[in-house]
Amino acid sequence: MHIRIAMLGYGNVARALARLLLRKTDILQKDYDLTFSVTGIATRSRGYAINPDGLDLEAALQVVDSGGKLDTLHRGEPVSDTLSFIDACPADAIMEATWLDPQTGQPATDYARAALRGGRHFITANKGPVAYAYRELSELARQQDRGFFFESTVMDGAPVLGIGREALLATTVQRIRGILNSTTNYILTCMEDGISLDAAVAQAQQIGVVESEPGTDIDGWDAAVKIVVLANVLMGADLRPGDVDCTGIAELSIADVQGALKAGERYKLLCEAAREGDTIQASVKPVRLPLSDPLSQIGRTSSAVTFETDTLHHLTVVEGDTDPTTTAFGMLVDMINIARGRYR
Amino acid sequence: MHIRIAMLGYGNVARALARLLLRKTDILQKDYDLTFSVTGIATRSRGYAINPDGLDLEAALQVVDSGGKLDTLHRGEPVSDTLSFIDACPADAIMEATWLDPQTGQPATDYARAALRGGRHFITANKGPVAYAYRELSELARQQDRGFFFESTVMDGAPVLGIGREALLATTVQRIRGILNSTTNYILTCMEDGISLDAAVAQAQQIGVVESEPGTDIDGWDAAVKIVVLANVLMGADLRPGDVDCTGIAELSIADVQGALKAGERYKLLCEAAREGDTIQASVKPVRLPLSDPLSQIGRTSSAVTFETDTLHHLTVVEGDTDPTTTAFGMLVDMINIARGRYR
Repeated sequence: MHIRIAMLGYGNVARALARLLLRKTDILQKDYDLTFSVTGIATRSRGYAINPDGLDLEAALQVVDSGGKLDTLHRGEPVSDTLSFIDACPADAIMEATWLDPQTGQPATDYARAALRGGRHFITANKGPVAYAYRELSELARQQDRGFFFESTVMDGAPVLGIGREALLATTVQRIRGILNSTTNYILTCMEDGISLDAAVAQAQQIGVVESEPGTDIDGWDAAVKIVVLANVLMGADLRPGDVDCTGIAELSIADVQGALKAGERYKLLCEAAREGDTIQASVKPVRLPLSDPLSQIGRTSSAVTFETDTLHHLTVVEGDTDPTTTAFGMLVDMINIARGRYR
Repeated sequence: MHIRIAMLGYGNVARALARLLLRKTDILQKDYDLTFSVTGIATRSRGYAINPDGLDLEAALQVVDSGGKLDTLHRGEPVSDTLSFIDACPADAIMEATWLDPQTGQPATDYARAALRGGRHFITANKGPVAYAYRELSELARQQDRGFFFESTVMDGAPVLGIGREALLATTVQRIRGILNSTTNYILTCMEDGISLDAAVAQAQQIGVVESEPGTDIDGWDAAVKIVVLANVLMGADLRPGDVDCTGIAELSIADVQGALKAGERYKLLCEAAREGDTIQASVKPVRLPLSDPLSQIGRTSSAVTFETDTLHHLTVVEGDTDPTTTAFGMLVDMINIARGRYR
């Protein structure tokens, strides 16, 4: 099978995906009889490139690394915007890793609609479309007989959504608890060592844990969007981020955090979704966890989720040492699973 | 789809499976369009029952719970032994949870051969066939276009093998580290509290963590069999339990265990398989783990495994609160995955 890929975005994650695709070309063919070409790349600031015969990915990486424009690789009529690109690019699957407005889930949600309506599979690392339009997009994908996959939206490439689809079968998930925001977890770990929130943020930015403005991390909104993804996909909820009872970590002091530690507990920004009768309640808030709780042990930039179900009582998945490649890997897995028909 | 099941064994796990099948009958039909009948049950001490129209599972549970023989439910010619049962019982899938000789992997390995040769899918909770004959049985299953699935052999129903098959795609597993034997983990946790090994064993037997003779737990052999399963299935190794560099916990004293704890470390019976050049080395041994290692935090009867791979750097799966139902659940997942063709 040959799959033609169009990439939306060419930032850290998308470029890690390009490098991963290059590194895994042989094993994809050997293990899955799967070959690919990247027929287009659309970016906000580096222009657009379409080549129906397949772009030279190495060349595209070099162009961007050297500060150039992708348009130099483009063939055919000029492209004016991303929606036109989605229509124009000859592709079987759109792989999306663009900027997100966390308050609206846009523009990625519109990209997903356009891709699926146009009969393309849609793979995203962007939690917006899933948190704001999961049911609509899943139904659209089903009608179009295409895949809508998004493993990398929560805990990067760790298979938390794949476990739901492939392992928690005939199972009711009663509760999900997680530490899903690396920035705040890193900050809280620093505060245990007596480093202030502001200094910890600066440190996180320096080592690249926080890419830009950490406001939606600290106020809990990023975590709220993620728990909504898990609740909607794995528990059948129909929540939006605004439905989450959400408190961030801005009010916590070093004294609070160190006081908890002295009492044998740890402050964590805990995400939770719980089935209560016929409804599902979701919350994000700083909570003191006893050290006996596995989630209390998730340090620095690790993340984790615990599923409580009516079959497996407690199943916890922990991811450590994340980087753009681990996020890109989730997208690669989605691509393989779509190629082998796992979306039906 | 309708699947006819023959069960080998009717001990704790198999009876939990029977109860789980009854509890999940509706959701199997609703979510997977899957109906089932249990056309036979074979036991060592409670006789054999075959009914081509499907046995009454509730009745079979009652017979065994009340100390009776399953033969009362049998129809047709008498059955003399389990291999004859496998031939005679009209079934699409054999689900096996019998006694294991951990030194040979028998008799389950012969059951697996007979089932697959007879064109039945084979699902087992028994690590013997996988540790001693994985390549042979996988190849036989492939030739017969049947499934050979065994999720419950390591960490009960936690999807550690499913993650390999469905999530660690196009990935090289470089190292697997795990705490895979509940009995020794429970004992080591007790020893931290000053309870001797012998007293801890007695306590473990009382709460049902150890079912019978704990010799193969304490000497590390049970853990060795499990790390061989993981290494062979997820790393492409071809090891046997005798190839594992194996040391148990019999030589550890309370002073050793408490001394480690005072130094900020914890003794754990660590299972490890590591790629070293072209070979894979496996070991089981008591190791002092720093508290910063997630595996050091696995207490009492929990178990865990960490995968180090060339895509996801560190992925850890932790299972807590296990019981026969969690093991049975892994077998149910195998059954669903076979029904939906995941073995091809």
